[in-house]
Amino acid sequence: MQDLTLAANALRMLAIDAVQQANSGHPGMPMGMADIAAVLWSKHLRHNPADPTWPGRDRFVLSNGHGSMLLYGLLHLSGYDLPMDELKAFRQMHSKTPGHPEVGLTPGVETTTGPLGQGLANAVGMALAEQLLAAEFNAPGHTLVDHRTFVFVGDGCLMEGISHEACSLAGTWGLGKLVVIYDDNGISIDGDVKGWFGDDTPARFEAYGWRVLRNVDGHDFGSIDAALATATQDDGRPTLICAKTTIGKGSPNKAGGHDVHGAPLGAAEVAAVRAALNWPHPPFVVPDEARAPLDARDRGTTAQREWEAVLAAHPRAAEFMRRVRGELPTGFDERAAAQLAAVVAKAETIASRKASQNSINALAPGLPELLGGSADLAPSNLTQWKGCTSIEKAAAGGNYLHYGVREFAMVAIQTGIALHGGYRPFGGTFLMFSEYARNAIRMAALMRTNPIYVFTHDSIGLGEDGPTHQPVEQVATLRLVPNLDVWRPGDAVETLVAWQTAVRHRHTPTALILSRQNLPHQHRDEPTLAAIQRGGYVLVREAADTPLQLVLIATGSELDLAVQAQKRLAEQGVNARVVSLPSCFTFEQQDAAWRASVLPAGVPRVAVEAGVTGPWRQYVGLEGAVVGIDTFGESAPAAALYAHFGVTAQAVVDASLRCLGR
Amino acid sequence: MQDLTLAANALRMLAIDAVQQANSGHPGMPMGMADIAAVLWSKHLRHNPADPTWPGRDRFVLSNGHGSMLLYGLLHLSGYDLPMDELKAFRQMHSKTPGHPEVGLTPGVETTTGPLGQGLANAVGMALAEQLLAAEFNAPGHTLVDHRTFVFVGDGCLMEGISHEACSLAGTWGLGKLVVIYDDNGISIDGDVKGWFGDDTPARFEAYGWRVLRNVDGHDFGSIDAALATATQDDGRPTLICAKTTIGKGSPNKAGGHDVHGAPLGAAEVAAVRAALNWPHPPFVVPDEARAPLDARDRGTTAQREWEAVLAAHPRAAEFMRRVRGELPTGFDERAAAQLAAVVAKAETIASRKASQNSINALAPGLPELLGGSADLAPSNLTQWKGCTSIEKAAAGGNYLHYGVREFAMVAIQTGIALHGGYRPFGGTFLMFSEYARNAIRMAALMRTNPIYVFTHDSIGLGEDGPTHQPVEQVATLRLVPNLDVWRPGDAVETLVAWQTAVRHRHTPTALILSRQNLPHQHRDEPTLAAIQRGGYVLVREAADTPLQLVLIATGSELDLAVQAQKRLAEQGVNARVVSLPSCFTFEQQDAAWRASVLPAGVPRVAVEAGVTGPWRQYVGLEGAVVGIDTFGESAPAAALYAHFGVTAQAVVDASLRCLGR
Repeated sequence: MQDLTLAANALRMLAIDAVQQANSGHPGMPMGMADIAAVLWSKHLRHNPADPTWPGRDRFVLSNGHGSMLLYGLLHLSGYDLPMDELKAFRQMHSKTPGHPEVGLTPGVETTTGPLGQGLANAVGMALAEQLLAAEFNAPGHTLVDHRTFVFVGDGCLMEGISHEACSLAGTWGLGKLVVIYDDNGISIDGDVKGWFGDDTPARFEAYGWRVLRNVDGHDFGSIDAALATATQDDGRPTLICAKTTIGKGSPNKAGGHDVHGAPLGAAEVAAVRAALNWPHPPFVVPDEARAPLDARDRGTTAQREWEAVLAAHPRAAEFMRRVRGELPTGFDERAAAQLAAVVAKAETIASRKASQNSINALAPGLPELLGGSADLAPSNLTQWKGCTSIEKAAAGGNYLHYGVREFAMVAIQTGIALHGGYRPFGGTFLMFSEYARNAIRMAALMRTNPIYVFTHDSIGLGEDGPTHQPVEQVATLRLVPNLDVWRPGDAVETLVAWQTAVRHRHTPTALILSRQNLPHQHRDEPTLAAIQRGGYVLVREAADTPLQLVLIATGSELDLAVQAQKRLAEQGVNARVVSLPSCFTFEQQDAAWRASVLPAGVPRVAVEAGVTGPWRQYVGLEGAVVGIDTFGESAPAAALYAHFGVTAQAVVDASLRCLGR
Repeated sequence: MQDLTLAANALRMLAIDAVQQANSGHPGMPMGMADIAAVLWSKHLRHNPADPTWPGRDRFVLSNGHGSMLLYGLLHLSGYDLPMDELKAFRQMHSKTPGHPEVGLTPGVETTTGPLGQGLANAVGMALAEQLLAAEFNAPGHTLVDHRTFVFVGDGCLMEGISHEACSLAGTWGLGKLVVIYDDNGISIDGDVKGWFGDDTPARFEAYGWRVLRNVDGHDFGSIDAALATATQDDGRPTLICAKTTIGKGSPNKAGGHDVHGAPLGAAEVAAVRAALNWPHPPFVVPDEARAPLDARDRGTTAQREWEAVLAAHPRAAEFMRRVRGELPTGFDERAAAQLAAVVAKAETIASRKASQNSINALAPGLPELLGGSADLAPSNLTQWKGCTSIEKAAAGGNYLHYGVREFAMVAIQTGIALHGGYRPFGGTFLMFSEYARNAIRMAALMRTNPIYVFTHDSIGLGEDGPTHQPVEQVATLRLVPNLDVWRPGDAVETLVAWQTAVRHRHTPTALILSRQNLPHQHRDEPTLAAIQRGGYVLVREAADTPLQLVLIATGSELDLAVQAQKRLAEQGVNARVVSLPSCFTFEQQDAAWRASVLPAGVPRVAVEAGVTGPWRQYVGLEGAVVGIDTFGESAPAAALYAHFGVTAQAVVDASLRCLGR
């Protein structure tokens, strides 16, 4: 085994100096994992710094993302387009070296990490996608998909519940090309982890069906190399390498303690490290002999060239590249138009969760990249389609995932699948339990990925299951997540448009908010039908012969209440229109003229939605009215609940009349 | 061992008939766990149906809460005030038998369950509170606290990540009086769990340091009894009883399959069960001989009487009862006033997280029930106080919990502690990671419990850690949770008032939203100081000699921006006031006159908060302005971020002038 001391110390010094210069950051982890990183990146990781999008590359995930400087150092020294000036600008505005790694910003960063445990779950999604793509595209003589997913995790990642969910699934799915390296340094922010982390982690992972390599010396290059050599022999199980390390290794006075975790070492200690490591170079200077082992440019170019030859010979090369690029198949728009026409013609009164299933059935034959699933609610979320194939062992392929009761991992795994490329993941749970996955949804939006969430049972309309299951504030809170498109369709037609919009999104995840109960079909003429995709539109126009007096705004299961109220108001001489607003996100992206044409200024507005009322003031102002629910729900049949909470057509009428001073 | 067939079948039939009558519910679990329940409740559970609040009772938690009819049957047959008419009204409006068990609504229900895994974490909190109380109040000859916590869990609970977090802690803390019974029926909603739940669960729990009793026949009374007899011998480890059961046991055609999980059996199958169980009684009729084994009235009264004798002889009986009743100690208000005066006098410019720590230091000496903690961020959340004692093994006592990196379990455990009584739990994490615990926060609010959440690093003001850590929408989304009081104090004075308010809440949890960065002290006269506790008040009053032209509204770290803007506006001839709105929840509870005095109608309003702007329309209307951030954050020093995102005093001035048409 080559002596990688210089390379490892270069990684240490870059981390220390960058943190010191920024006066902010986490030196402890990079110092502790530098030796492991040097072995992995010099000898085992197959990647090409010249093309960070090469589909055949190994994926590397830094789940303990606070150690970002380790990754930036690795990318720089490997030859990625991350010059030293970027490292000098660590944690400064608009640098490519932010506090935590961000995918899309820095070449070579595979996923955005920092919130602990989620990178690990992303990596499970990547390793799964690799196995499924291999099952779908590899054939004798055509080994196109054959790469590994490596993950660094710390104690924090393994304490988080999502690690249980994701690693249980990785074991069940048999992700033999997933290699997780556990930075077992015994320290977390509060101090020695023994007081709060007593798990026998190796035994725990064996209970998940993993191969566990225990007691690897994380500072001995040979031991690390041997462990990685074993781990990269696929035996049908994911591998956990338990590497004993010293946090802050190389710091004479701070190594092994929690002070080195998340603060600069200070000038004196940085100098002490320089002396201890015998590193005479000034900050941000790395000699060639330290760079050489990590420089992956030549071998990366060679590896990619070999892979491209395999691709060129593959009978479905174009389809493969379409899939990994995330492009829709040709003819998608024509098929989408035909599907919409068919749903309009059927004019069905069905639950929007059922309309969602119909949409999936319509879309799936033309979208082989669809990869569905649910957190153990397939019969309720209606996420399965005709001819979908359940995945058991990933190597055997399939296109439907039984995630079990694991919402958080489901969403984070979907993000990993989307980041890997080749599949368009969607997954279902009850809207309430989107809360279990809340931060993973946000992370998907932050990363500009495009999974689709099928959140059914979206209000008190679910009935008897009661307040623990009845969303009240959930739709409103999801709407507040930047770059998350939230659709709450009002009938089967809007549901299909929502699905088509979600599928078209390339950089935005979509939450589909769907009813358990039936929703009546709404009639639309052609221009109205075409307007749905604008997110907000006039569903029922006011009488043209008198001035518009009132705008009724509604979404989802309450859309029909607004339609009924509009009729009753007309009978009372009030000239109102009904605006359907299934996606505020999409509506807000329309130009001002469209928005003003839908919601004309100066006309009183009344909104109705079976949820919290406050956020609707954004549309109705202080003078308008909102019919909704600001308390928790109750357990009772749905009809009784709507009456009890006063979410009825009559309540909309009454609020409207009050609003007009009548 | 007594033959409990009749009692178990009574539980089965009550569940079947109630679900059938409601045409909604989950018969499979009650039928599968009826035998275990009959043994536990007839022979091992120490409780008194006449007094569900008896502090000495064993706690029973149904973490698989969809099996609620099992619990209602048990409570009814044991002698609780839950008459048969309530069982007949299962899942109907305003019955005491809602779809999932709700604490506070049904006597004998210890916690609200349904969202899987959380009941288990609540139970860990209860078992922890018991051990801590025992350490604090038991003495030779005074064994006042000595009860157990029993939990039923299903596959779903054990798949959820929170089960990992909570059970790892239970093992570390050595909760020897926690007994968990795992309903190992091999079925979840998607079908046979083997396809998505391959864990070796016994090995997993042994890895947490639990005692595991494997392969117990969940339909053999003797085996169940023997397992419970072992489990109730405290050996310093929590116990998991793995009970093999058949879901829907007793149903000739549906037992063992997933169709029996969540839907009525149907009239024909109900009749078939009646025949198979040889149960000739009509629905909701239970013969005395089936009731007798579960009737706990006499033994419950005796047990409580014995305990009350111990209480009467205890030297600190009054203090114990104050603690378990959740009453504040005498003199609290006087001390609170003195603490506030001291903070006002100090007039410190400090971070509100530091002011929070000062508040804890002020409160703790007079509140021995305070039980603090953090999810591995003690040095950042500043949740430790002078003289607090870290808890390692719970039996050894203490008052500070190192939860590790486990936000979801932390919050759910706090709920369990609060439900148990005796302690006022608080716990900290970064505001962003409140999202990991999102649904547990909601459950605490739904249950009307009163934990306190210390959420620090509350905005882009945290600086370099970047968008993964910078809250943008989190404060707004928390404000939408019913019955959650969210305080975002603007200086050290408001921080102490927030803490005092939180401590006074009996039925409302409080989220304290705190800055990483320093906040300047704001000057207040006496009436202004007294007004803070109203949640919204005029901090800086407009000039009295000219009409009020503008209201500036701000919270937290942006309060001082509004104060600065008000001065600059005055220089430009605009007569504005500054309203501080640290708690919208509290402000909305004030009478209309107060609210109108703070926010007079017809005066333009401008709000500033370093977060999403839309929700502020609730206060400023469509005509007002909001200075905030509607995108994700960036990694950079805090000052650069505030400038970059345009959250500055000058931006407030500019928005104000635009708002006034100037």
